Amino acid sequence: MRMSGYQGLPMGQQERVNDSCNSDAAAMANIDNPIPGVVAQLAQGFKDGRLASHIEPVPIPSKDAVIGLIEQAQQILFPGFFTPMSLRPENLEYYLGQQLSLLYENLATQISSAIRHDCFRHNQVCTHCGERSYAAAAALLQSLPAIRELLETDIQATLVGDPAAANADEVIFSYPGLFATMVYRLAHRLHQLGVPLLPRIMSEHAFHRTAIDINPAADIGGSFFIDHGAGVVIGATTRIGNRVRIYQGVTLGALSLPRDAGERLRNVKRHPTIEDDVIVYANATILGGRTVVGKRSIIGGNVWLTESVGQDTKVALEQPELVYLGKEDQG
Amino acid sequence: MRMSGYQGLPMGQQERVNDSCNSDAAAMANIDNPIPGVVAQLAQGFKDGRLASHIEPVPIPSKDAVIGLIEQAQQILFPGFFTPMSLRPENLEYYLGQQLSLLYENLATQISSAIRHDCFRHNQVCTHCGERSYAAAAALLQSLPAIRELLETDIQATLVGDPAAANADEVIFSYPGLFATMVYRLAHRLHQLGVPLLPRIMSEHAFHRTAIDINPAADIGGSFFIDHGAGVVIGATTRIGNRVRIYQGVTLGALSLPRDAGERLRNVKRHPTIEDDVIVYANATILGGRTVVGKRSIIGGNVWLTESVGQDTKVALEQPELVYLGKEDQG
Amino acid sequence: MRMSGYQGLPMGQQERVNDSCNSDAAAMANIDNPIPGVVAQLAQGFKDGRLASHIEPVPIPSKDAVIGLIEQAQQILFPGFFTPMSLRPENLEYYLGQQLSLLYENLATQISSAIRHDCFRHNQVCTHCGERSYAAAAALLQSLPAIRELLETDIQATLVGDPAAANADEVIFSYPGLFATMVYRLAHRLHQLGVPLLPRIMSEHAFHRTAIDINPAADIGGSFFIDHGAGVVIGATTRIGNRVRIYQGVTLGALSLPRDAGERLRNVKRHPTIEDDVIVYANATILGGRTVVGKRSIIGGNVWLTESVGQDTKVALEQPELVYLGKEDQG
Repeated sequence: MRMSGYQGLPMGQQERVNDSCNSDAAAMANIDNPIPGVVAQLAQGFKDGRLASHIEPVPIPSKDAVIGLIEQAQQILFPGFFTPMSLRPENLEYYLGQQLSLLYENLATQISSAIRHDCFRHNQVCTHCGERSYAAAAALLQSLPAIRELLETDIQATLVGDPAAANADEVIFSYPGLFATMVYRLAHRLHQLGVPLLPRIMSEHAFHRTAIDINPAADIGGSFFIDHGAGVVIGATTRIGNRVRIYQGVTLGALSLPRDAGERLRNVKRHPTIEDDVIVYANATILGGRTVVGKRSIIGGNVWLTESVGQDTKVALEQPELVYLGKEDQG
Repeated sequence: MRMSGYQGLPMGQQERVNDSCNSDAAAMANIDNPIPGVVAQLAQGFKDGRLASHIEPVPIPSKDAVIGLIEQAQQILFPGFFTPMSLRPENLEYYLGQQLSLLYENLATQISSAIRHDCFRHNQVCTHCGERSYAAAAALLQSLPAIRELLETDIQATLVGDPAAANADEVIFSYPGLFATMVYRLAHRLHQLGVPLLPRIMSEHAFHRTAIDINPAADIGGSFFIDHGAGVVIGATTRIGNRVRIYQGVTLGALSLPRDAGERLRNVKRHPTIEDDVIVYANATILGGRTVVGKRSIIGGNVWLTESVGQDTKVALEQPELVYLGKEDQG
Repeated sequence: MRMSGYQGLPMGQQERVNDSCNSDAAAMANIDNPIPGVVAQLAQGFKDGRLASHIEPVPIPSKDAVIGLIEQAQQILFPGFFTPMSLRPENLEYYLGQQLSLLYENLATQISSAIRHDCFRHNQVCTHCGERSYAAAAALLQSLPAIRELLETDIQATLVGDPAAANADEVIFSYPGLFATMVYRLAHRLHQLGVPLLPRIMSEHAFHRTAIDINPAADIGGSFFIDHGAGVVIGATTRIGNRVRIYQGVTLGALSLPRDAGERLRNVKRHPTIEDDVIVYANATILGGRTVVGKRSIIGGNVWLTESVGQDTKVALEQPELVYLGKEDQG
């Protein structure tokens, strides 16, 4: 029998290959079927009305579709960069018209799901959900020119601030900070329009792509530049002025929270205010709803700040003592 | 000739467009074909039996298929959230049955690849690999109700701990910490079942989506909440109790390792133990296999800890000296 | 009418369901069509020649296609790992030949787009863009055996350095550091060949997958190992020797930059030099173009370094004062 095995292998390896003739499908017969028992257990749990199931007669937003919305908006905001087709001045209007129509339809559908689902969860009668969805979708579309203007200022801020940025194309194609800022600006508008669920699904997608976590409720001015960006956290009640620059690992967060923070602090300003023209270097942490960093101030790397700082001030860690050791020890 | 060029452009630009008539395909003829030489060099290297090739008669797990397993499990654990179809109480059992059948088949196939590949690499005869694969797949399925219960506690912990979480839907759709925890709980079970390779492929996918790196071998209790999460590292021999809360950038790691750490320390407890009800704030680092953080203790942001801490203790950095400077200098 | 509603629901919920008969499509009619106005506004903005649009008669690289290039290269560099087909010694040459042909074509196409786009933007006549593209693509292919050799040393360094790495398979499948290093080595070669735009698109994709940000212009030796890696930043003018090991959150960056840094510092060495056999532990920050870390030195976790360190030196933070508090206070 070994003679008929796979010829290129030494003996021992042939046996192993032969074992695969003992096919997996046949092997299945020797194992008790686990499925009916697991179905029964899971179904009972879900029917007991636990938290995390969506067994309802109303649709729920689709995460994939929401990601699609972001991509469609990106193709409108940066025409020609993320489409296979070549755009020319003559066909630009057609292109924009078609893309906007697509975005409008898809956006209204997802907003409608989000609103109807929200009504259902709150046991409210859903009145005019359809109209409200199209109205919100239309309002987002009408904000696109202004969002586009803001993103131009963000690109400009990147070019001014980063010696490694060769040109606007590179920034648009490859700067995670710009992507996260674009998604934030879209999600923030939906948040302002009172659309449930979608803003956070959007910001999660931006986080997935960039490791930058900007809550859609935060308030961020123009000419905003996040460099590198992994680990950046910008909390829900943060306020950021114009021309602010932030580096990787910066947290604009809340002070330490009581264990039951969720309920008690849901609508309180818990995150700092960063005024115009501030720079916050890598891994600095700025905490607290009453903490204000004044205009043109600079917060150094690794600084841990829980108190306000005036205008035109530079804050740095006192250079920590470094210990230099010879070849032998150190933990 | 310029007259026939693209009309909307100034002269110089027309020339450039004309250059594309000098088609890329024709251009190829002017370059020596690099392929035969590169094939020969690479093939020789692979045949010399280097580390990183898989030229074998046995299949290897498919990364895409493993990611598919995670998505299928997610659709079972959170029914209705990640499927286009609308679930109702009447069709729930059918849905679960079908999804579980799919997961069972695919899981057994990937486990079988992983086991057979592992046998081959260790020059062992693969006996009963088929049965072992179905048995492990069945065991994972049978753990899903318990994993589901744990994830309910994780969602509840998120709602209790985070003022920015509006409801369970938002947590399920958009919290990277919950996704990473779900993948960890699945991968950890496969790790316990002795399945090679798949657990780390799963945890890498979670890291890719969330920048949270939880080794599948770590031991983590219920009601676990990671907020934001970028940069979190939880090492293989970490033990974490119940109701623990962790923020972005926290490392639960090993003390500095000798250069040949790989071989010497493979099975030693190198990572800390975090007892029940502990909170670890952003960017804290806790290192060492003998380091224990006692029940209900709180570790402040940026703390660097290599020694044990008792129960009910709060550890904070002594507020580091900040240097405030006027407009002029600072590096 | 309620009688004809969905039967399984209580009264209030039926109304809500009925509301969906008020179909979304019908609802659209009640909202003013926002599209013509938005098209006009956006089109005007784009035609005014703002930064971030690509309305040109020349093609632009496709981000998806560039990601495809990385995947094709990965299938060549690690044969058998990322393909559904099973490779055997007899079919290896065919496999490599076919994959290399595919990569060659696709690479030349994308390089051509990048070069032509660059010429167009700089108002230069594009001469021999086709030949230049195929020449660059051929040069990259010819570098693959050497890149493969380097990656073998990187895998070996991972196995030596990480107790959690069971074998080379796990490293190839699941180590973000290896993926980021592979993409860096490809992008760096394209950068050396003077190809515009593609290197940064590649490194952005690696960042997206790993939260590791390595500028393609950096210069990194063999046996390089990044563990965990989220938040690692390696700037454009960094030089790294052989056998260097780096942990999560490490920044090799520039000193604080003036506000107009972009223009002034574009071609100056701004990032540090790390010599052979150095280890840099988690979240250490090393800044400045004149900062050199000498051979075999070890930089401890969280260290903030802006000055050079000699050979065989260990640098650690003086253990910062920790404050231990009882149950009551602390912020």
